Amino acid sequence: MTMDMRGIAKFVYEAGQLKLLPRAGWLLAGIRDPESVAAHSFRVGVLAYIIADLEDVDSDRAATLGLFHDLPETRIGDVPSVGRPYVATTAAQVVAADQVAELPDRLAAHISALIDEHEGAKTAAGTPESRCSRDADKLDCLLQAMEYQAQGNQLMQPWIDSMVAAVTTETGKRLAAAAQEISPGEWWADFAANFGARMQRTPTPPPH
Amino acid sequence: MTMDMRGIAKFVYEAGQLKLLPRAGWLLAGIRDPESVAAHSFRVGVLAYIIADLEDVDSDRAATLGLFHDLPETRIGDVPSVGRPYVATTAAQVVAADQVAELPDRLAAHISALIDEHEGAKTAAGTPESRCSRDADKLDCLLQAMEYQAQGNQLMQPWIDSMVAAVTTETGKRLAAAAQEISPGEWWADFAANFGARMQRTPTPPPH
Amino acid sequence: MTMDMRGIAKFVYEAGQLKLLPRAGWLLAGIRDPESVAAHSFRVGVLAYIIADLEDVDSDRAATLGLFHDLPETRIGDVPSVGRPYVATTAAQVVAADQVAELPDRLAAHISALIDEHEGAKTAAGTPESRCSRDADKLDCLLQAMEYQAQGNQLMQPWIDSMVAAVTTETGKRLAAAAQEISPGEWWADFAANFGARMQRTPTPPPH
Amino acid sequence: MTMDMRGIAKFVYEAGQLKLLPRAGWLLAGIRDPESVAAHSFRVGVLAYIIADLEDVDSDRAATLGLFHDLPETRIGDVPSVGRPYVATTAAQVVAADQVAELPDRLAAHISALIDEHEGAKTAAGTPESRCSRDADKLDCLLQAMEYQAQGNQLMQPWIDSMVAAVTTETGKRLAAAAQEISPGEWWADFAANFGARMQRTPTPPPH
Amino acid sequence: MTMDMRGIAKFVYEAGQLKLLPRAGWLLAGIRDPESVAAHSFRVGVLAYIIADLEDVDSDRAATLGLFHDLPETRIGDVPSVGRPYVATTAAQVVAADQVAELPDRLAAHISALIDEHEGAKTAAGTPESRCSRDADKLDCLLQAMEYQAQGNQLMQPWIDSMVAAVTTETGKRLAAAAQEISPGEWWADFAANFGARMQRTPTPPPH
Amino acid sequence: MTMDMRGIAKFVYEAGQLKLLPRAGWLLAGIRDPESVAAHSFRVGVLAYIIADLEDVDSDRAATLGLFHDLPETRIGDVPSVGRPYVATTAAQVVAADQVAELPDRLAAHISALIDEHEGAKTAAGTPESRCSRDADKLDCLLQAMEYQAQGNQLMQPWIDSMVAAVTTETGKRLAAAAQEISPGEWWADFAANFGARMQRTPTPPPH
Repeated sequence: MTMDMRGIAKFVYEAGQLKLLPRAGWLLAGIRDPESVAAHSFRVGVLAYIIADLEDVDSDRAATLGLFHDLPETRIGDVPSVGRPYVATTAAQVVAADQVAELPDRLAAHISALIDEHEGAKTAAGTPESRCSRDADKLDCLLQAMEYQAQGNQLMQPWIDSMVAAVTTETGKRLAAAAQEISPGEWWADFAANFGARMQRTPTPPPH
Repeated sequence: MTMDMRGIAKFVYEAGQLKLLPRAGWLLAGIRDPESVAAHSFRVGVLAYIIADLEDVDSDRAATLGLFHDLPETRIGDVPSVGRPYVATTAAQVVAADQVAELPDRLAAHISALIDEHEGAKTAAGTPESRCSRDADKLDCLLQAMEYQAQGNQLMQPWIDSMVAAVTTETGKRLAAAAQEISPGEWWADFAANFGARMQRTPTPPPH
Repeated sequence: MTMDMRGIAKFVYEAGQLKLLPRAGWLLAGIRDPESVAAHSFRVGVLAYIIADLEDVDSDRAATLGLFHDLPETRIGDVPSVGRPYVATTAAQVVAADQVAELPDRLAAHISALIDEHEGAKTAAGTPESRCSRDADKLDCLLQAMEYQAQGNQLMQPWIDSMVAAVTTETGKRLAAAAQEISPGEWWADFAANFGARMQRTPTPPPH
Repeated sequence: MTMDMRGIAKFVYEAGQLKLLPRAGWLLAGIRDPESVAAHSFRVGVLAYIIADLEDVDSDRAATLGLFHDLPETRIGDVPSVGRPYVATTAAQVVAADQVAELPDRLAAHISALIDEHEGAKTAAGTPESRCSRDADKLDCLLQAMEYQAQGNQLMQPWIDSMVAAVTTETGKRLAAAAQEISPGEWWADFAANFGARMQRTPTPPPH
Repeated sequence: MTMDMRGIAKFVYEAGQLKLLPRAGWLLAGIRDPESVAAHSFRVGVLAYIIADLEDVDSDRAATLGLFHDLPETRIGDVPSVGRPYVATTAAQVVAADQVAELPDRLAAHISALIDEHEGAKTAAGTPESRCSRDADKLDCLLQAMEYQAQGNQLMQPWIDSMVAAVTTETGKRLAAAAQEISPGEWWADFAANFGARMQRTPTPPPH
Repeated sequence: MTMDMRGIAKFVYEAGQLKLLPRAGWLLAGIRDPESVAAHSFRVGVLAYIIADLEDVDSDRAATLGLFHDLPETRIGDVPSVGRPYVATTAAQVVAADQVAELPDRLAAHISALIDEHEGAKTAAGTPESRCSRDADKLDCLLQAMEYQAQGNQLMQPWIDSMVAAVTTETGKRLAAAAQEISPGEWWADFAANFGARMQRTPTPPPH
């Protein structure tokens, strides 16, 4: 069992690699020091949860699929779409099998199943949750493109267009439309506009 | 409904703020440009899944709790422990209630419930999944401290010690012990050592 | 006295924390890796000196107030305005009292007095120098917003507008107006335009 | 006067350049993305204030000298010591005269005088405040070297030794000794150790 | 000979300094964390090769001149044009003589000759290859300005204009014109547009 | 011909991608924001020149091979060794053929030949220059590992060992040995030690 725990410790250190791995597609658009794959995976999980909830399927499951979907990138890196004609990567499921090799069997099977399920989204047998997770992957990319555009980047339109085209669920399509209509800064602009009213419920200064 | 979608779009742009927000505790240890809260949340979700799986409770739920647990930090920031005597923040549940105010009612209730459940970990009524998520929060911090130490940082011991002390599940405690015994680089060192054997199954060069 | 010196050493290491602490408001506008609080404090000091000189009050004092005004942020962090409804921080003066606790008494009193005086700017008893320092705090933020806008950021207008509205001295108001009329790059553009003339007084190559 | 204000606006935009200019000496030690000259100037000002206060001279003046002392670097850059045999720069006072050329006459004279006074520290006519400011320049470098060393950098000893040797005031010498005896992280380690006691005076949660 | 090898090792560590040294001119345009001198030198070498090939002169030689041309900047730093009225640097050739002092004589002479030849570009005796290398230096700056402009920076026009004016070869002039006509992202936009066709020759998944 | 120039402009913008692309292997060792492929290519060129000069073969050619050797990485990314069992990339020569497709024929052939020659280093038909370039690739990695180690990184030994083992020329082997014996900072430490003597030939201050 100690051996198991060392295997688990190695697995979670490996997962931490995604905190450092940059999302390579943004480099093509000239973004210096872009978001990490871990940061991307975070919002994919959040988006998958929301889409699943609105599509009335298992939202905890969809979030978990989104969270884990890029785990094989610790070994295959993040290959941008335009690199695909030149780069062949072992299927995510096969990489995952190696990644979980030192985990306890049941846990290994469960994590492998997460990757399998997400990868199945594009097939007829794809679960509804996997389609939410896949749409979430595209939508985070769309949102991030809008965010980089708000920073001044003038090369984002191809990302926005191709992500919109890749979304497949009804909820995903409507969210893609809404995300293009508003500014990434609207949430705090609204918030700041109501600042006065909100301040009336501000906490009293702490006692000292 | 269009109005709903704009509310959802604003919510996911707000969630994206965690990609930019640095984990403030690391600044105290002199770390320049530390990991983001989003990157942290990613591995908290992964760790919560693993702990829950080993503790035989709902791992999808635990992962989702870990994923969402720091969402209120878009509005309250990331206050390090040593700042607590000077900074009082509105309870996470109250912040979350404001964050979800423009979401459809059912979705809003579900997301609020995620925050509520995670925050309940420290209470008698805490769910087993919330205890996994809370331990995961501590363990990611421990792993990250080990990782910064491997980069040369000499101020990490207090983080390691206090995180070890804060873990409460059996699985969490054993994982904390194992994580301190191995180097963060062991996963790829092992991997590299078996490089020759693996290369024998390397893909053939792509046709052109 | 050795004990005193250790207390002083700890105090100046603590002050160094502001070199690492990012100005959190800029994160809301999507700025990746924004300026530090120390860098901000530098130009607040410079601006306070200039405003005070033009307003005919003690410019060395105003610069010093500007320089020290954010020192409590080593312990309370940098809370952006939109976070204020959710975050209550101990008064700057109280934090400062803790920060100077291990300094020799007279020095401690003097530094506490700097924070007190700056914080008093908004009161009837505020010194003229404190009003210069407070305006300088707003003006540096305005200038920085103009600078980020010149880098392409499209979300800066709310910062510019709110900073303009917050300035109170005559000099501050006129400087805020001028700063909006010119480009942040005008100083070196003018300089470059006169390049030829200046080169005539260029140093001769060093002897070797 | 409008013309004056434009000149002042250009001057403060120029000062902002120091927020971006890296301290070049640290590059020689392999530091990636080192502190800015503005961040350095901030702590030089703080240190100059403290030294002057302890040496019983005008501390507001000393702080102001420290704050402004590197302003000419917007035009001459930051030349590290080892570059000096190859690089000759116009005297700081001459550069400053050009920098203030579009300021109102009195303000221009005052700022030029700040640079003159700081540069005079090494001469017999140097004011006590200028010697505090000069020592502060050396001490911030010493503190920063200790801080980079705590991050793991193994090349800092020459910086530490040469800075210690360059300090001239009694207070400066004693502070240099104390700064070498303690860890840069001691201030918050002490703080964290007393965490329990402090928490008893923690602010009550804000009303909502 | 061992002594020689240590001298060579020191020389190549010194050359590595250019990986860390930022191109200082971009700081004036507000670029945070700009490209390194090493990264610049890379594309100068590539451009020099191309220009020389089209001008029918020795392209390997031109590339090598471009690669080495900024080596003296390890000691004199990167002085932007606007700093020139205030900063005198020892001639590149003289700096290079010091840099190669511990190299074997023949190697030292060869490297010195590279710097000499590049610096001679502006003289009547300049070699054709040196003119290619010098134009390459200007063209990389032009391309980089276009790239920063595509990121949103609004202060790039003076760089573009002055670089266009500085190019002297026929090939260089025509390339400067072409580089201004297209977007820095056009190469992969074209590439992405042909994505479908290319994917037909994609490598088959690797065997496992 | 205008069409040709646009093709060339696209090619050099594509080459610029290497300024942004991080060397992926360092991410595995936990290095945040590692050197770019362009910065690496710069020193590979310098090292190839030196090795070739000492091995008495065409040093301009070797430098040019080193400079261009990673150009295909704009399309295939930088795949670290440990990723090789999972990632198959189209041969560098085939990628290069696509990269030069819009260049004038002769130039296209010449650049393709550079990639071909470098890739041939490991074959019996490899040119001496290609072996210098390949050793330079390994040696830059070794030097960089030593440099990261001097920053505190504790995971560098596997890189150092594997690079030493990969070097094949006599000169390369001896340089690898020397590089491990000295500190990356020795060049400027020596320099600083002789500072006094050098200052005697310092340039006189520039006239104004």
